[in-house]
Amino acid sequence: MSDRLQAQFAFLMEADKLKQVLRATTLADGSRRENSGEHSWHLALYALVLADHAAPGVNIDRVIRMLLLHDLVEIDVGDVPIHSQNGTAHGSASVQAAEAAAAERIFGLLPDDIGSGLRALWREFEANETADAVFAKSLDRVQPVMANLASGGGTWLEYNVTAAQIESRVGAKVARGAPALWGWVRGQLRGHFPDI
Amino acid sequence: MSDRLQAQFAFLMEADKLKQVLRATTLADGSRRENSGEHSWHLALYALVLADHAAPGVNIDRVIRMLLLHDLVEIDVGDVPIHSQNGTAHGSASVQAAEAAAAERIFGLLPDDIGSGLRALWREFEANETADAVFAKSLDRVQPVMANLASGGGTWLEYNVTAAQIESRVGAKVARGAPALWGWVRGQLRGHFPDI
Repeated sequence: MSDRLQAQFAFLMEADKLKQVLRATTLADGSRRENSGEHSWHLALYALVLADHAAPGVNIDRVIRMLLLHDLVEIDVGDVPIHSQNGTAHGSASVQAAEAAAAERIFGLLPDDIGSGLRALWREFEANETADAVFAKSLDRVQPVMANLASGGGTWLEYNVTAAQIESRVGAKVARGAPALWGWVRGQLRGHFPDI
Repeated sequence: MSDRLQAQFAFLMEADKLKQVLRATTLADGSRRENSGEHSWHLALYALVLADHAAPGVNIDRVIRMLLLHDLVEIDVGDVPIHSQNGTAHGSASVQAAEAAAAERIFGLLPDDIGSGLRALWREFEANETADAVFAKSLDRVQPVMANLASGGGTWLEYNVTAAQIESRVGAKVARGAPALWGWVRGQLRGHFPDI
């Protein structure tokens, strides 16, 4: 029992570092950059509140679990913003390999029976094939859009993002997992991108 | 649908403010104070990873939902540290009344069918009577202990906390919801409080 708790807390104390991984996106009021820990909390709340936009059969509690751990690999790899000049690296083979190694290390801190389940959930999110993962990924794309809208442009201004880039990098993914939600968000975007 | 989404996002954008509510406790490395958004994320992860210490019948997904929203009222009321000089205010009638009003306002931003369920879940956490709430509350007490241990004392030094105060303010609550967990944490505490 003591060894088991030691391992559980080794993981939980390691996870604390995610609060120091900064994202490109700011808080809604633009006052500072958001960290990946508070981002993960906000996303889990998105899932709880927007559950009625998920496809039939989506298990919201599994979606919440996925979102709680989806960014832990950033403790080793950092956040790769989709709109940055380095944006082509997002989802590249080298980033994927680094994230897989990070998942081995971080979930490997846990007792096997817990770590293997959480690592499988992380892989499912990354593969973006199951209905649960597709919905989780939709929310992960919507949240920074809402922060940028609230803060008056945020990373869109910083990286000169165009309406076409929003449609391809964000819209396609959100529309796949939550079409009605994307319809509404798209309407909100017209104030910032008149040609969307 | 449009009005409904407007209300859902009014709540989610309001929730963003929890990332700016600072707690007394610092991050594990002591570098800065923790905010209540990232704290809520970390606690949800505690529930996911320490589920095997919950009493039989505890529904971990409900515990996670509770922990995701348990601190939202702090957007209006702020965090009242249990060890501060103002610690007697923690749980006082006036703080409870202010928190109840905050819950009305904040969950009231949501469509009724969602907001009433979340407000009920928050009330259940506060009442600390059901098995789910008791376990959630145990984790809420353990997480700052682990942060203080990691950072070399944290708020215990700041507020001159004694072993007896740890036992009464923290130990009693944690032992109620997760006795084996408290046994282990208590052992860790001996390095800092030799007379515990």
